[in-house]
Amino acid sequence: MKLTILGCYAATPRTMTNPTSQVLEIKNHMFLIDCGEGTQVQLRKNRIKFSRINHIFISHLHGDHFFGLPGLVSTFRLLGRDKDLHIYGPKGIKEAITLLMKLGDSWTNYQLTFHELTSKNSEIVFEDDKVSVATIPLKHRVYTNGFLFREKLGERKLNIEAVAKYQIGKAHFRNIKQGTDVLLEDGTMVSNKKLTFDPPKPKSYAYCSDTGYKPDIVDQIKNVDVLYHESTFLESEALLAPKTKHCTAKEAAAIANAADVGTLILGHYSTRYKSIAPFKGEAQDIFANVELADDGKVFEF
Amino acid sequence: MKLTILGCYAATPRTMTNPTSQVLEIKNHMFLIDCGEGTQVQLRKNRIKFSRINHIFISHLHGDHFFGLPGLVSTFRLLGRDKDLHIYGPKGIKEAITLLMKLGDSWTNYQLTFHELTSKNSEIVFEDDKVSVATIPLKHRVYTNGFLFREKLGERKLNIEAVAKYQIGKAHFRNIKQGTDVLLEDGTMVSNKKLTFDPPKPKSYAYCSDTGYKPDIVDQIKNVDVLYHESTFLESEALLAPKTKHCTAKEAAAIANAADVGTLILGHYSTRYKSIAPFKGEAQDIFANVELADDGKVFEF
Repeated sequence: MKLTILGCYAATPRTMTNPTSQVLEIKNHMFLIDCGEGTQVQLRKNRIKFSRINHIFISHLHGDHFFGLPGLVSTFRLLGRDKDLHIYGPKGIKEAITLLMKLGDSWTNYQLTFHELTSKNSEIVFEDDKVSVATIPLKHRVYTNGFLFREKLGERKLNIEAVAKYQIGKAHFRNIKQGTDVLLEDGTMVSNKKLTFDPPKPKSYAYCSDTGYKPDIVDQIKNVDVLYHESTFLESEALLAPKTKHCTAKEAAAIANAADVGTLILGHYSTRYKSIAPFKGEAQDIFANVELADDGKVFEF
Repeated sequence: MKLTILGCYAATPRTMTNPTSQVLEIKNHMFLIDCGEGTQVQLRKNRIKFSRINHIFISHLHGDHFFGLPGLVSTFRLLGRDKDLHIYGPKGIKEAITLLMKLGDSWTNYQLTFHELTSKNSEIVFEDDKVSVATIPLKHRVYTNGFLFREKLGERKLNIEAVAKYQIGKAHFRNIKQGTDVLLEDGTMVSNKKLTFDPPKPKSYAYCSDTGYKPDIVDQIKNVDVLYHESTFLESEALLAPKTKHCTAKEAAAIANAADVGTLILGHYSTRYKSIAPFKGEAQDIFANVELADDGKVFEF
């Protein structure tokens, strides 16, 4: 699981910082999460192939999470894309993108499917045999969802030595990986446990931005490996957090602590701060394993 | 008159090049012309004060001239703008920007006025006592206007020595600058020509992008000091120009030559070319005074 931060600063794009966007590589998928202005340039800077992005998840329709999307959709067309593109986001996103394409008489030459979200409860929005994506309803000034990405438990791993020892043919491998025992020609039953190792533990990633402090998400994100949680403010501006429906670093840490996550990544810093280092310090008063997102930073888990 | 090129490349924003946007400083105005994605970052890089921009002119609603506008309008709000903002552009621009603001529940705290354009004939869209702006109807895949910025003839300049010689009091200065003769107390009439110098010649700037080859604009832009004309293609791709309703460098030069302009600035280069230098060479076969726009370049006239 590999997370590339394309942008992680609040509000307006600036010379050195970008609004929110990130790419999660998980089980051969390359999911784009949010798409602030400048995302396509950030994709290029970080050498991420446009053609590998087939699913885009938009948390909410504030500009700093969304205004890079029309340009990206257009660029896909200019690049001659032919694969389907799926966009998941709040109701209204289809009208917005469609209107902009219509005004420019620039229809896509690929299939563009919008999955508009309206539910206040968590729902699975994407699922295949390897991974699922569920919404995490958040609390912000407009309708907002975080997203919970979960690998599914994979096949059991073949124990090559054991298989050789029992002289089991390749024809059985498919079933063995799926957990079945094997009946040898001499009538002996070999239990699956002798022939396989446990599959790797499935990984999980929760993306929560933007949101006010919302402890009721803890149940859903319990024990995730990685939590990206917004922390717009430091303690010195703690009073602004509830007003603007954002969080402080300490509040993000409190969520991480209650959910007992593996790693907390902070981001969505207000651009008023000259250094982001204090975010880590304040969060670590409550939760130890804190990382700071920054534009261009790559996390591998 | 000062022109700052924020971006002058066609199609998609890239790491090193930006889509179209430029700032024209003329008679204390700072006019923003087109607003591709990333324009607000380019404004910062070029140290142009956001608060000085009160008028934005959008040629057409293709993304590379327009997708930076929603973000800029939002940023003005975040910066606490209170001055009115006027946006001139094709019909539909109001619906697009308004929808995006509505979806983000992010109304502006300043007066935002749209001047939507639909005419196929040139019209004056802005005018005060110092400058006028007229549309230049262009020929592109969607409804498109260039813009012609003209300084007005200023007041005559007082000849301080002559005024002193005739002992003319300050009370007369206002009228003298506006061209009146002066009757001295001894009954002598002093002609205005003796008391003033001609005002500086008014300057003019024509912005023509995007457009196919359209010789009928020549009458309107005859003798302008500076013409910015798109030149998407070199001769090697000349066949693509009429298909996509763009121009080659040679076609831009032909327009400049027929209109007998002072300086031709080329821009809107296709991103297929590794170097823009050949654009100048091809244009100069037809018209001598050619400059190449490039991102961050400043022209003073």
